[in-house]
Amino acid sequence: MTPDLLTLPQGYSFAAHACGIKPQGALDLALVFSEIPCAAAALFTQNRYAAAPVQYDRQLLSLNPTGVQAVLINSGNANAITGSMGLAATRRSAEAVEAVFGLAPWSTLVMSTGVIGVPLPVERIERAVPALHQSLQADAEALERAARAIMTTDTRPKVVSVQGQVAGVEVTVAGMAKGAGMIHPNMATMLAVLVSDVAATPHALHQALTQAVNVSFNRISVDGDTSTNDTVTLLANGLAGNPVLTEPDDAGFREFTALLQRACVPLAQDIVRDGEGATRFVTVEVTGLADDDQAHRLANAIAVSPLVKTAIYGGDANWGRILAAAGNSGVAFDPAAAALWISGGESAAKMLPLLQIVDGGAPLPYSEEEASRRFAQPELLIRLQMGDGPGRATMWTCDLSHDYVTINGEYRT
Amino acid sequence: MTPDLLTLPQGYSFAAHACGIKPQGALDLALVFSEIPCAAAALFTQNRYAAAPVQYDRQLLSLNPTGVQAVLINSGNANAITGSMGLAATRRSAEAVEAVFGLAPWSTLVMSTGVIGVPLPVERIERAVPALHQSLQADAEALERAARAIMTTDTRPKVVSVQGQVAGVEVTVAGMAKGAGMIHPNMATMLAVLVSDVAATPHALHQALTQAVNVSFNRISVDGDTSTNDTVTLLANGLAGNPVLTEPDDAGFREFTALLQRACVPLAQDIVRDGEGATRFVTVEVTGLADDDQAHRLANAIAVSPLVKTAIYGGDANWGRILAAAGNSGVAFDPAAAALWISGGESAAKMLPLLQIVDGGAPLPYSEEEASRRFAQPELLIRLQMGDGPGRATMWTCDLSHDYVTINGEYRT
Repeated sequence: MTPDLLTLPQGYSFAAHACGIKPQGALDLALVFSEIPCAAAALFTQNRYAAAPVQYDRQLLSLNPTGVQAVLINSGNANAITGSMGLAATRRSAEAVEAVFGLAPWSTLVMSTGVIGVPLPVERIERAVPALHQSLQADAEALERAARAIMTTDTRPKVVSVQGQVAGVEVTVAGMAKGAGMIHPNMATMLAVLVSDVAATPHALHQALTQAVNVSFNRISVDGDTSTNDTVTLLANGLAGNPVLTEPDDAGFREFTALLQRACVPLAQDIVRDGEGATRFVTVEVTGLADDDQAHRLANAIAVSPLVKTAIYGGDANWGRILAAAGNSGVAFDPAAAALWISGGESAAKMLPLLQIVDGGAPLPYSEEEASRRFAQPELLIRLQMGDGPGRATMWTCDLSHDYVTINGEYRT
Repeated sequence: MTPDLLTLPQGYSFAAHACGIKPQGALDLALVFSEIPCAAAALFTQNRYAAAPVQYDRQLLSLNPTGVQAVLINSGNANAITGSMGLAATRRSAEAVEAVFGLAPWSTLVMSTGVIGVPLPVERIERAVPALHQSLQADAEALERAARAIMTTDTRPKVVSVQGQVAGVEVTVAGMAKGAGMIHPNMATMLAVLVSDVAATPHALHQALTQAVNVSFNRISVDGDTSTNDTVTLLANGLAGNPVLTEPDDAGFREFTALLQRACVPLAQDIVRDGEGATRFVTVEVTGLADDDQAHRLANAIAVSPLVKTAIYGGDANWGRILAAAGNSGVAFDPAAAALWISGGESAAKMLPLLQIVDGGAPLPYSEEEASRRFAQPELLIRLQMGDGPGRATMWTCDLSHDYVTINGEYRT
């Protein structure tokens, strides 16, 4: 999305700064600010090594879920596996924001991304907070600069904005995300901040966010690794003036969840498209299993298989690896009932006709040339029907390339 | 092991031939032959797409587990996901061996490895069986030629021979294996054939094989993918003359299982050392968890993590990824109780002193230079103590290199 197409919800502003965590003056500090206190919700990594900012934010939301006014994000250092020093550093950075911006205690969420196990140079963050304060702007350019400041191996900023009706009132959701590596669906994946002018309680926000994340950020995989820092936060300042959403039964709750999903899906897909070393965007659609969870597990086995991902990188229509990965998923199905189609194209809107490769669990006499033509496209569709059950799932993933190995073999050096 | 060091058990001979499944006259057909019928046991892939030879062998062992005299193995074509035609092709190739060698029906096990989903050119195998018959030899060179004929992306043949006492009688176990890609512990992984002169029932062989495989082939990972064809077979012709092993309680059963394990561990490690694109051999030792299964799951999460494996490829002592992978394993542990040591060296016998990196879940002020020196070695040891429980496990894995991507991006072309 280009900045001139981005509408921002009322009451939010953004800032970015280069505080010296990253080398060579790159932007590495971002702030999201609301002029009034917000209801907030967040989803966090399931990794047992939750980073210091994840631990801090969990505590903050249990203490003050309706009084959040800022989100401070640094890149270049994950502040993970840094012990009690790490937690103290997170607290100091939040308190620096609260002091400079004149906010109440426990009003600043903190997010970090970057290398694991290195002490956070918190004094560089503290020194930069006044500059963040001075450069706050309530426009799309500022949001995009903030999105740039949270990047690690991402090659481009990822921002979004959507509008829609919630109980008859126009509501906006805008946000940003970063991804690139250690990306795998397990609750919230990677960092994302979403802001809205909707009026809602923290409980309702949490419900809506969970539903939206389950069909967006939890349906992507770059490399099967779940980070120590994954966080998706959602702030809602209520300035849209809709009747406050409190429960999933409320008028407007489903509309807001759908709106949130419209914001999360393109951000999640952007993360895959910009996955480390990714050259191809792959949609895996699975139908016909006992339930959606089984379908998701089977789609996931395909999405994380190094053999499937390297074949796609090579443009090799090596479909046997797709079914072999399905066979490894641990999901029960009749191998003789499987059907497989593939397609490819320049974009989701420009796909070649579906080519059926397998029927009844055995290969059809398909044209190898037609299969290769599809596997050579930048966007690939893999559609599997594994029986006649009602379970279905869609996942998005990317290929595994030489550049992925290069990027991750040299990350710290 | 060099051929001149290999002692063969009595009564077995081996042959290899180039039958034209692989291009350019490469060896692609191997035969293991016993002069008398053998008791046999095998462990197979858990992939739901079990290849035709896996289905055939399962049926054969249920019908005739004491009358096996031959194992026919082809490389270059997995005969997997090939439908009923594939099963018919496996049966025809077994019957060709039985006709030419004058064997009883259901006496020939079949194994296949190579590309998935391509019809097996069974007539080429049938035409080559007389040549296999003529070239049978009972020596180590023939075993090594057979080991060469079952290779796919392996760069070298893998053979083994061990001797030991079983209930006071000298017993020999020899064998061969192939691996390289689609290697991941899940029951029998890859292809291996073991032959012994021990006297044992199929039941006892199956028990011994299961125990030995659980601490060898089931403890390795190259890429986390489990093939459709993985099989480990064990033949026993009884010529050593020991009292027949029938139950795990029998005198000699534990000795034989230990002997089998001594054969399986180096073959399994050879598979990892020769993993597709592997430049480093990595041992992951985990202790201190609730039980061995939990320790195995945690070691496995580290062994399959692309981020850990690419960091090792790059020689980057990025230990944070090791603990992050442990945190993703789904295993319960206290993050603040973890300790991590690393070492490296030219071989298991020549390792640098252990360097402790983490204690109490937080980094120690270790020397980055000393850490990098260890990560730059061809053999790497990662030792994690995750608490004070009795559970422990060791796994062997390799790094993830540019060559892995190259090999698997171009496999079929």
